[in-house]
Amino acid sequence: MIVAGLMSGTSVDGVDISLVEITGKGHRLQTRLLGHKGYPYSPSLRQRILQAAEGGSVGEVCHLHALLGEVFASAIIKTARTCRVPLKKIALIGSHGQTVYHRPRPIKEAGVGMVRSTFQIGDPNIIAERTGVTTVSDFRSRDMAAGGEGAPLAPYGHAIVFNRRKVNRLVLNLGGIANVTVLPGNGEWSHIRAFDTGPCNMLLDGLMNIESQGRRRMDREGRQAAKGSVNEKLLGWLLAHPYLSQRPPKSTGREMFGSSYIHRVLKQGCRQKLSFVDILATSCRFIAQVIGDAQQWIPQPIQEVVAGGGGVRNKRLMAELEDRFAPVSLKTMEACGSHSTAFEAQAFAILAYQRIQGVCANLPSVTGARHPVILGTISPGKIK
Amino acid sequence: MIVAGLMSGTSVDGVDISLVEITGKGHRLQTRLLGHKGYPYSPSLRQRILQAAEGGSVGEVCHLHALLGEVFASAIIKTARTCRVPLKKIALIGSHGQTVYHRPRPIKEAGVGMVRSTFQIGDPNIIAERTGVTTVSDFRSRDMAAGGEGAPLAPYGHAIVFNRRKVNRLVLNLGGIANVTVLPGNGEWSHIRAFDTGPCNMLLDGLMNIESQGRRRMDREGRQAAKGSVNEKLLGWLLAHPYLSQRPPKSTGREMFGSSYIHRVLKQGCRQKLSFVDILATSCRFIAQVIGDAQQWIPQPIQEVVAGGGGVRNKRLMAELEDRFAPVSLKTMEACGSHSTAFEAQAFAILAYQRIQGVCANLPSVTGARHPVILGTISPGKIK
Repeated sequence: MIVAGLMSGTSVDGVDISLVEITGKGHRLQTRLLGHKGYPYSPSLRQRILQAAEGGSVGEVCHLHALLGEVFASAIIKTARTCRVPLKKIALIGSHGQTVYHRPRPIKEAGVGMVRSTFQIGDPNIIAERTGVTTVSDFRSRDMAAGGEGAPLAPYGHAIVFNRRKVNRLVLNLGGIANVTVLPGNGEWSHIRAFDTGPCNMLLDGLMNIESQGRRRMDREGRQAAKGSVNEKLLGWLLAHPYLSQRPPKSTGREMFGSSYIHRVLKQGCRQKLSFVDILATSCRFIAQVIGDAQQWIPQPIQEVVAGGGGVRNKRLMAELEDRFAPVSLKTMEACGSHSTAFEAQAFAILAYQRIQGVCANLPSVTGARHPVILGTISPGKIK
Repeated sequence: MIVAGLMSGTSVDGVDISLVEITGKGHRLQTRLLGHKGYPYSPSLRQRILQAAEGGSVGEVCHLHALLGEVFASAIIKTARTCRVPLKKIALIGSHGQTVYHRPRPIKEAGVGMVRSTFQIGDPNIIAERTGVTTVSDFRSRDMAAGGEGAPLAPYGHAIVFNRRKVNRLVLNLGGIANVTVLPGNGEWSHIRAFDTGPCNMLLDGLMNIESQGRRRMDREGRQAAKGSVNEKLLGWLLAHPYLSQRPPKSTGREMFGSSYIHRVLKQGCRQKLSFVDILATSCRFIAQVIGDAQQWIPQPIQEVVAGGGGVRNKRLMAELEDRFAPVSLKTMEACGSHSTAFEAQAFAILAYQRIQGVCANLPSVTGARHPVILGTISPGKIK
């Protein structure tokens, strides 16, 4: 079965699509990446999504829900054409959607109890209607309904793809937020742990964006960071954030490490009279240190680290991570037969496949849910 | 198959649940109402929903989405207990959700085209998780993705339940908004027409609510309206609203006839120095006249009118409607073996059943969609 996975991460930079061939049953799946494309949002669309996420009105959020449905559908149609996979051969779409709100910490409501909520936009009805392909979406809500954090979900994909017998592997995703997945070499899925360690590209990209007054989205290859030096005082301030010492399971996002946080980081840097490149370099060290420190919550000794996500292209960050994990080897997903920037989208292709198969694909040991649940809702494709 | 249908109308007064036994295939279904319960929202919850719908933030809308999921799930569990139908025997839930935004008129987006959007809250993942019953929701989006207005949808239920050979029937729903469905006696479903005529209980309830400073939700049995007289000047002003002369297909809601409209009505009444009961009486006449005038867009001569919705309990309104349609007989749904206030919820039980059967249940002649589509997304129940 050919499945298209769509991912739009917390960086709000666009949508990534992976075309994946999936075969197998239960938790034993074989996956093969057929193609991968990324489509950046236009700056104005990105701005509208960010504004909606940071307090937009119901009307604008609802309109963007439909608009992103159209954007995602076009992107799938383009990907199929570019990768020379006829749309008709795509049996299923798994669309994560763009998170505009995620609140795993419950709010108490009298007479009802604890209420957690999350919302990803990009209307699956529009995707299914335009492509004719059955579309699975809204992957996080069911896990939260079962008491989980609704995140992270990619670890299930990590377990399917990067699981290696007798080797305790740490899979590291360097996205807007960095997250780690521990795959124990004993193959016990209930021993899998995963959590968001803290900010990653969201911080680095946000700093570049402010410094360049919106002209640059990222520090390409970490070139700016490479020019700077680490400042211990700023590093200490960064490491004092309360999220970092919180025990997993835990997840975070733009609410905690969005633009207001990034402005506070810059302000701290200015207080220390640091140059911009020093702030960037310190941020890279900070991210790597937080990721390395995550081992304190992992019972197994890590024997291999597999890194993916856009952050693998940041050479300064990767160098910091190598230092941090040495002598344990740090590989990219490419070195393991996968693809660093395609993987998150691939994971949602896998989750969509499991929705259709009726297989539970949350990991309660990871999300904190009370039990395994089937993730996602189904919008039907073309009537046969 | 026993199906629970949930409806929360534009009046935002609570949730109605109908337990319906459904059998049959394709468009030939038999339905039997097993029970019906209504659960009013608490005044504070109602207030929060109204505020969210009239410009709430993404955070509050998202939180209410989850909170209403809990409220709906509890209501289903209570209904099953009260009606002595074990929850395990309920095979399916169809939940309309509470509309917080509905914009069928498209907004043009450069590079994308026309975008229409709608959003109903009440997380189906929570309903399915708490009840263990597979839940269908989000019925309107797919029709809108296919170019339709996403409304009205109940006419499909009308066609299933009230279709009568050789009699041109008008089914009239007196909800927050009034809508009519024409069921031609020739049985040609493509000749079915239906549209929202204009405001109904939303206006009457809104007037009572303002006048009583929030102490009264409605003019029970139309007793206040019965004390007043119709004022022709106010009636003329009311009838001049541009929506009323618009050709169908058309649909409307709180955006057009919500609190700001109701305040304008009161202001007009004050300008004519009318008593409150005169404003109410004039509003009843206005509603009836608009409904009667709807016949101008109906090619078939109407031979029977079947009325349902909360408005059938308003005696003044029903008397006005009888005058308007005479000599054509005006029956309530009860007189046709159904139930006036249970019907809308029953319609969503029917729509959920059709989602599972893979039967298209929009009526393109009614919504304006380009073609028939399967409505709703599916959240799975308990793992078997």
